[in-house]
Amino acid sequence: MYRLYYAPGAASLVVHWLLIEMGQPHALQRVDMDARQQKSAEYLALNPNGTVPTLIADGRPLYEAAALVLYLADRHAEAGLAPAVGDPQRGEYCQWLLNLANTVQSPMRLWWYPQDLHGLPEDAVREAARRRVEAAWERLDAHLAARGPYLLGERVSAVDFYLVMLMRWTRKMPRPGDAWPHLGALAGRMKARPSFAALYEREGLSEWR
Amino acid sequence: MYRLYYAPGAASLVVHWLLIEMGQPHALQRVDMDARQQKSAEYLALNPNGTVPTLIADGRPLYEAAALVLYLADRHAEAGLAPAVGDPQRGEYCQWLLNLANTVQSPMRLWWYPQDLHGLPEDAVREAARRRVEAAWERLDAHLAARGPYLLGERVSAVDFYLVMLMRWTRKMPRPGDAWPHLGALAGRMKARPSFAALYEREGLSEWR
Repeated sequence: MYRLYYAPGAASLVVHWLLIEMGQPHALQRVDMDARQQKSAEYLALNPNGTVPTLIADGRPLYEAAALVLYLADRHAEAGLAPAVGDPQRGEYCQWLLNLANTVQSPMRLWWYPQDLHGLPEDAVREAARRRVEAAWERLDAHLAARGPYLLGERVSAVDFYLVMLMRWTRKMPRPGDAWPHLGALAGRMKARPSFAALYEREGLSEWR
Repeated sequence: MYRLYYAPGAASLVVHWLLIEMGQPHALQRVDMDARQQKSAEYLALNPNGTVPTLIADGRPLYEAAALVLYLADRHAEAGLAPAVGDPQRGEYCQWLLNLANTVQSPMRLWWYPQDLHGLPEDAVREAARRRVEAAWERLDAHLAARGPYLLGERVSAVDFYLVMLMRWTRKMPRPGDAWPHLGALAGRMKARPSFAALYEREGLSEWR
């Protein structure tokens, strides 16, 4: 039994989605971001980054959304969402996980939280972040065009769930990720999964259906 | 047999170090960064990010240094550098890998390449990046103080090699990572490994012995 500290639509979304998709029992604990509960002493004792998600697994708190994707998909191998160690696609799988974290999630964070770069004009940080995110979408779309329709080709895997969450985050940017044709097609297929509708219902989400 | 595209001291360092540590046969292919060989059409066909490292494994090119750490340590489990899937420490291991990528490597990149944030004053980007890197060292040092001496406690793992490479990169910053006491102690222990001397010799490195 897992316990997931989450906030609707935040980085916890991909972890929540995978738990539903894989049919793993879990309790939800909502973190009130408006009240800055993620910066409370109690929460920081679980996750010193003061961010969601935190997942309690076997009684231990774990954080970093992409790490939880990796951890859960390997642990519940029967769901078939991660090429196992030794599988010829394992290397690509690891590569895409880190590539999404480095080239999309990292500049996306600056777009949402430009104040993280203390002392710089927020508009200019967002504009620079936008360029980097769009360059990443361009590269990812070219990859899907050549080797898709999923990141690992014909095989859907946990990194596709992560990619869709990142695309969702760009829905208010001048050019959202799913405006690129192959990225948009991947998003459409992933959003058609029953687990996506269940996720939206449980988190109370409506945007970007 | 692996083939590693590398440049001395670059992000390829941790991959090279692990290959030596694990005794895995590999050929080295130096990339001339001064001549911007990493941006050549030939290299971009292997790695569209135009960065080192690229690792050729079973004839396929793979990139993203942290992904290669994950991939190699799992694949060569006999080296004992990664808690296996199902091991109680697997979750923490995944967490630290992504935490180093997100909270240290990502702002470190901005310190080295402030021009990545197009249109912003480079000095101010570096200063903001410095603050973020130092905040990450502070958190990591506190973790090691409480739960060290390695990231996973008594057990050395591949994420410690990655951490040491990141500390090495901060050697010219106002406060380098190894100036924090527990981080410095970890660096000292890791640098005493015979594989570290072999790595320095093969890459022709001398700084930060």
